[in-house]
Amino acid sequence: MRLPSHLGIEHGRLRIGGHDCTTLAEIYGTPLYVTDLDRIAGNFRRFHAALAAHYPQTQMLFAAKANGNLAVIRTLAAEGAGADVFSAGELELALRAGMKPERLLFNGSSKSPTDLALAVETGVRVSVDSLEELRQLDAVAAEAGKTAGIAFRVNPALEVPTHPKIATGLKTSKFGIPAEEITAAYAEALASEHVEPVGIHCHIGSQILEVEPFARAAEVMNGVAGEVTDLGVDLDFIDIGGGLGIPYHHDTDAAPTPEEYAAAVMPVFLRGIRECGIDPSLWVEPGRWLVGDSSVLLVRVNSVKRAHRTFVNVDAGFNLLVRPAMYDAYHEVLVAGRADAAADGTYTVAGPICETGDLLAQDRGLPAPQAGDTIAVLDVGAYGFAMSSQYNSRPRCAEVAVTGGKHAIMRRAESFDDITATMETPDRTA
Amino acid sequence: MRLPSHLGIEHGRLRIGGHDCTTLAEIYGTPLYVTDLDRIAGNFRRFHAALAAHYPQTQMLFAAKANGNLAVIRTLAAEGAGADVFSAGELELALRAGMKPERLLFNGSSKSPTDLALAVETGVRVSVDSLEELRQLDAVAAEAGKTAGIAFRVNPALEVPTHPKIATGLKTSKFGIPAEEITAAYAEALASEHVEPVGIHCHIGSQILEVEPFARAAEVMNGVAGEVTDLGVDLDFIDIGGGLGIPYHHDTDAAPTPEEYAAAVMPVFLRGIRECGIDPSLWVEPGRWLVGDSSVLLVRVNSVKRAHRTFVNVDAGFNLLVRPAMYDAYHEVLVAGRADAAADGTYTVAGPICETGDLLAQDRGLPAPQAGDTIAVLDVGAYGFAMSSQYNSRPRCAEVAVTGGKHAIMRRAESFDDITATMETPDRTA
Repeated sequence: MRLPSHLGIEHGRLRIGGHDCTTLAEIYGTPLYVTDLDRIAGNFRRFHAALAAHYPQTQMLFAAKANGNLAVIRTLAAEGAGADVFSAGELELALRAGMKPERLLFNGSSKSPTDLALAVETGVRVSVDSLEELRQLDAVAAEAGKTAGIAFRVNPALEVPTHPKIATGLKTSKFGIPAEEITAAYAEALASEHVEPVGIHCHIGSQILEVEPFARAAEVMNGVAGEVTDLGVDLDFIDIGGGLGIPYHHDTDAAPTPEEYAAAVMPVFLRGIRECGIDPSLWVEPGRWLVGDSSVLLVRVNSVKRAHRTFVNVDAGFNLLVRPAMYDAYHEVLVAGRADAAADGTYTVAGPICETGDLLAQDRGLPAPQAGDTIAVLDVGAYGFAMSSQYNSRPRCAEVAVTGGKHAIMRRAESFDDITATMETPDRTA
Repeated sequence: MRLPSHLGIEHGRLRIGGHDCTTLAEIYGTPLYVTDLDRIAGNFRRFHAALAAHYPQTQMLFAAKANGNLAVIRTLAAEGAGADVFSAGELELALRAGMKPERLLFNGSSKSPTDLALAVETGVRVSVDSLEELRQLDAVAAEAGKTAGIAFRVNPALEVPTHPKIATGLKTSKFGIPAEEITAAYAEALASEHVEPVGIHCHIGSQILEVEPFARAAEVMNGVAGEVTDLGVDLDFIDIGGGLGIPYHHDTDAAPTPEEYAAAVMPVFLRGIRECGIDPSLWVEPGRWLVGDSSVLLVRVNSVKRAHRTFVNVDAGFNLLVRPAMYDAYHEVLVAGRADAAADGTYTVAGPICETGDLLAQDRGLPAPQAGDTIAVLDVGAYGFAMSSQYNSRPRCAEVAVTGGKHAIMRRAESFDDITATMETPDRTA
């Protein structure tokens, strides 16, 4: 199996950032997320360089929903990243990680009054999703005696080749304002006293493995940029969103590189701003591409059952990695201690959750997994721990960071007491 | 809309257990789960009575995965319920709620060494899912100098009318031992020194709205009971699982009553034990039926957007209720303050999560929802909070219990600090 450079196999054993996965599982216990922070920094630098080669005024905003661990966000902050934040919690994380408010965009289709007040208070830019939200934000900013810098989120009405649940730029999606209504929206924003339109924003979806949809979206944004510039908006930034996919199928997915992405998108973007006669910052919002391949989930085999299929029963399921159950997502799996051994049969890796759909990997060739073996699930850095739950009353596992040749806990494992900590038990009096 | 007796509309306002939902939302804030504990007790009594009328030796085991709040489990424990537990955490919750160990079944297809040791230590019965697990349990019990009472989980290889992710009795499902191999498994258990086979167990799935599959499963279990009795097993219990559905579509689902369920299943069960000449306890494992209709999720409207559809943007999404996004599940929704007003149009209730699939209810007739309105999502007591996450770095909401005319917190809301509490942030040194 093709592996990215931070993973490797030595004497048959899988390593991440130079550390033996089986050893990490022994030291910290399983299940265990292991994240290579250096890989994240490297991914960031590569993506940024690919775009900056075309246009130096490029600002990368990490899509914070992909991975909410402070160690990850700190790593990206240190590289100069900002963040696309989707909630007060993500905003707080980004600020705490040391990101500058001017590099943050408060995104979201359903912001509460508290969210809007926080955005105004911290001075971050706001991606406004509806006219009603514009009016609410104007009122909140007026009350605070401030002016909020905004973009509207444009719905580009594009079909993209990805899972429908994460195709965010569809005509029928809940996100954004239809392109044909966008000029009127900016006109209203210009006329509002306490908001200042300074950007335009779109995002077409996630895990897209072709570059052409991004170029089409950039074309739509050129049209919007022209219209709003004519209207008198001084565009400080154009945010073209994120969505570049990663090769979850290591040997068969043809995933575009950041350089290929840049080669497809940047000429369109550059032509657009030249035609408008403007020089805004380019904002880009990768999430999965920066962190997805940085992590492995290490799980332990509890038992192997030969039934109508052969099940390898492991100690984590969709409580800790929901993508296979929720999106039919594919993740490569390896027996960590025999990572280059030949398969002896076909196995289905099943979690401990009480649902038939709790399968991490189906019908894979593996080398005779046995109770006690460590299995590594690859590419879990994005939408992995971030979407975890305590379903079946299972405490969530630890996360370990590997960096600079060392390893350390970046999130401790929960205990049973963490599950009950927020519970009160009122007596039933009836 | 047809409503169960603990819900009602007074002066146009939705009430639960006699409490005005809008008022509860004001007092406790939104999002908010509200659970009527008295309804749960009533559901339990009705289900138990329906079965006990046919066969007094009926023991109800609450499927604890459906709702892991201690107040809920205490309510059921006080009624005499046991529990079907699927993890060490659920076992701990059941014991802490006051359930007796002899009324618990430790179920699960992937038990860790720790799980098995805990089962032996607490003396609960174990539903064994594979021969390898049998041998592991025998070894663990030997080491503890004890004997573990077990059932095997039988895979009845039945197709049932429900969502494939929760059809647990399919031939290809990860659960249980194929019926044709079950006699050999019991023979091995009889020959094992530290396990004692005392029961048989099956479960065919969840949210099943016909009684006929349950009768077929009971027929399969009769066959198994005959075989293992002939083998010399003294059956102390026969556990026929759970799975009876509830009418999520209030006006159109034809959900069988517990009495109808009992009328279909009990004659089969009774004929089976008569033919075997045995009088085991009947164990039944309802989850959803006991708690599903007991709870509403109250959410606040942040904004309304007219785009290609009209979106009602609310403050909770699949972070707090994953069923619509994960299983395309349907939940009734009402504007709590105008619960009997006529619809003025068609609305899609969308959550605040950054995914297109984050819709709680699609294309519903509602009476002109507006920012600030409280919307009630019905029937969220099962697999609601239990499957919640902190996705998008959103703290989870509070749960309130209503009982005996009072209301009280049964789980406090999380804060941002609860999200970061387990994080450590190792420096990246490279």
